[in-house]
Amino acid sequence: MARPATLSGFPEWLPEGRLVELAVLDAAQRIFELHGFSSLETRSVEPVDVLLRKGEIDKEVYSVRRIHDEPGSDDALALHFDLTVPFARYVVENAGRLEFPLRRYQIQKVWRGERPQEGRFREFTQADIDIVDVNELAAQHEAEMALVMAEVFAALPFLPTVRICVNNRKILEGFYAGLGITDTANVLRAIDKLDKVGADRVRQMLRDDGGLADSAVDAVLALAQIRAADMSFVQEVQALGVRNALLDEGLAELAAVIATTSARQPGVVMADLHIARGLDYYTGTVYETFLEGYESFGSICSGGRYDSLATDGKTTYPGVGISLGVTRLVSLLLGRGLVRATRKVPSAVLVAVTDDESRGASDAVAAGLRQRGIPCEVAPRAAKFGKQIKYADRRGIPFVWFPAGADDAGDSVKDIRSGEQIPADPGTWSPPDTDRWPQIVAATEEGAS
Amino acid sequence: MARPATLSGFPEWLPEGRLVELAVLDAAQRIFELHGFSSLETRSVEPVDVLLRKGEIDKEVYSVRRIHDEPGSDDALALHFDLTVPFARYVVENAGRLEFPLRRYQIQKVWRGERPQEGRFREFTQADIDIVDVNELAAQHEAEMALVMAEVFAALPFLPTVRICVNNRKILEGFYAGLGITDTANVLRAIDKLDKVGADRVRQMLRDDGGLADSAVDAVLALAQIRAADMSFVQEVQALGVRNALLDEGLAELAAVIATTSARQPGVVMADLHIARGLDYYTGTVYETFLEGYESFGSICSGGRYDSLATDGKTTYPGVGISLGVTRLVSLLLGRGLVRATRKVPSAVLVAVTDDESRGASDAVAAGLRQRGIPCEVAPRAAKFGKQIKYADRRGIPFVWFPAGADDAGDSVKDIRSGEQIPADPGTWSPPDTDRWPQIVAATEEGAS
Repeated sequence: MARPATLSGFPEWLPEGRLVELAVLDAAQRIFELHGFSSLETRSVEPVDVLLRKGEIDKEVYSVRRIHDEPGSDDALALHFDLTVPFARYVVENAGRLEFPLRRYQIQKVWRGERPQEGRFREFTQADIDIVDVNELAAQHEAEMALVMAEVFAALPFLPTVRICVNNRKILEGFYAGLGITDTANVLRAIDKLDKVGADRVRQMLRDDGGLADSAVDAVLALAQIRAADMSFVQEVQALGVRNALLDEGLAELAAVIATTSARQPGVVMADLHIARGLDYYTGTVYETFLEGYESFGSICSGGRYDSLATDGKTTYPGVGISLGVTRLVSLLLGRGLVRATRKVPSAVLVAVTDDESRGASDAVAAGLRQRGIPCEVAPRAAKFGKQIKYADRRGIPFVWFPAGADDAGDSVKDIRSGEQIPADPGTWSPPDTDRWPQIVAATEEGAS
Repeated sequence: MARPATLSGFPEWLPEGRLVELAVLDAAQRIFELHGFSSLETRSVEPVDVLLRKGEIDKEVYSVRRIHDEPGSDDALALHFDLTVPFARYVVENAGRLEFPLRRYQIQKVWRGERPQEGRFREFTQADIDIVDVNELAAQHEAEMALVMAEVFAALPFLPTVRICVNNRKILEGFYAGLGITDTANVLRAIDKLDKVGADRVRQMLRDDGGLADSAVDAVLALAQIRAADMSFVQEVQALGVRNALLDEGLAELAAVIATTSARQPGVVMADLHIARGLDYYTGTVYETFLEGYESFGSICSGGRYDSLATDGKTTYPGVGISLGVTRLVSLLLGRGLVRATRKVPSAVLVAVTDDESRGASDAVAAGLRQRGIPCEVAPRAAKFGKQIKYADRRGIPFVWFPAGADDAGDSVKDIRSGEQIPADPGTWSPPDTDRWPQIVAATEEGAS
């Protein structure tokens, strides 16, 4: 269903692929709102300097200017590369008119000038939730982020098994400091590349570029090996023999997240101590999410806690957030043929048109069906009925409605899959629930059509 | 609810303002899908030359390039200024994999580097429907566009009275040609400015800049005066005494649109012969839409028929479309204080937390309510109940839930507006339907809260 985009990195879906994306977006929006998150959007552009101050992706930013402005005369605007940095700016700007803790969700496109590859795009849609508070943010929101996203995934039964991996920056930084490493940021960056380049290459980076002793490299890599769906990770880390106060703090925070998530939704969330996150604004809990069997696609849902991103110099607004990579997820589902829509169009019914003079009667039938929430369209041409049925069939529309004819026969509706045709009243007839709207099903499943 | 944007022309709403925008978007999406329109999105950027070839707004295009690319080395991309030109490109690119006539809706942001003013933005959201076919497009879709949008407006009862105005380019061009005018495009452009600059200025433009004789100017302005909700406009035009074949064709097409729309939804759609539309790709029927009493805001819903926009040189895909200016409409509703949300957040219920140890019990209550589609959040802190009630009150959350305490009292729920508190079971209790989700109501109306 995906088609090769003619602009590399700027994906576009066919209507049936877009139905898959809509299913993901609808589930996310519904779950987010049930959890009391308010919808927000921020403008697509930010002053360049706001964007370049944050994160490590300055090379990937797209600048924007009016085409007839002189170069240099522009206001130095750029497209946002994520939704967290603009949200932090929005919070500081509007603090006096917002209620804290602020729970918001934000579903928008972001842009990054990266080299396009499988699962990596230059324009893509993210669905974020964040909670920010004034000066202090309650710890329970860190488990909450993972649990809300786990509910979104549970609402998408066609997904492969999902694993939300949690770590804490304090564990990594404390552990590295406990080993006597001074440039912990450098080690973090190397560990963040573990999935991409493998352990041997990271070992080389740490030893040759980072100047770490073999024993330190061994310890760093041993820590990165630890993962557990229960609290056992705490002892495993302690068994490595490194002692550090920040490490202990991080372990306690991660233990609290795993205790809550494993009690509420067993098996979905796990501690995974190799998760580092590239963006440099995270200060504690971090998340990445993988689909079993498709780990090479990268994380489909990432985020973390940021204690100092949003500040006006006097007041700080600590936050925690997690971001669903909608485009990456949908590109995987479509590209690997994992799902399909039961039909291409919203319409459950095609209302046939007997002749041009009676088009109004067909329009009236359609209006009656829509009034009761049944999506339908009227045949564009008063062709032979066989042709009109073929029109419905090509679109996957399951029912064709025949308005009462001049021969005194009443209205009837035909299920073109079974061929069954029954008398029907546009004021009362309804399709089966599974036929009312297109469904997204696993590609291996028998669909409704 | 609107706040002065710090980047002029790039509006951002507060959460309660965004609720108004969501209500508009939800109504549009629901009605579009009931009418069998498929959702589509196109990328936000197009090659600059594709954009500059179309329309008359070359000065307003925003170009985009990677910030670290050398100037001149970019691929010459720009942000789209509408959704019609990208859709036409998409149709031609994907024609072999689409079913025609293609009915699609598209809700996305667009960008124009215009001077910001009331109702005019540099970034704004449009909600478009279009129908395109191969080589020939059935005429009934021209009435259909206006009727579908009229249904969207009817689903937004808080709107002022809406008037969808329809004209036909062929009437204007044929009439002008019948007057002996050769540069009809120039006259069209002048007439398009009628609302903005007034009749005197247009008269001056036509006479001094356009070189038209006084009698021709009189006739052009007389035509622009004609408006009618019924077929009477045909005779009024004919009474002006201009004879031209293209004019007759246009009159017949407009009469067909008005005949259908006045029969199906009397009073919403009218013929208005001063509507010209600035973009130069329209070839027949054109639409503009005004809110009574707020005409100065400009059209909130515009479009038209374009017979030659989408073509690969061999095959042409004629289309007709209409675009709802979501941001302009929402900015009017918020800026003029015409509507309000019954609360600021999705949550209908705040689940109180008795003490930190029993937070899990409160989480379980919330999970039970959400399972039955009741939006709720759990109090962020186990403060005194009075404080937790104030937390709910500030957000407009109507109900506070008190989980069963250690004193063997069962669960109870309090309507904090009336003060009434009743025993309740999280597995069965529901709020009244009007309290379940925030509602958008006319500002003068008693709300649910």
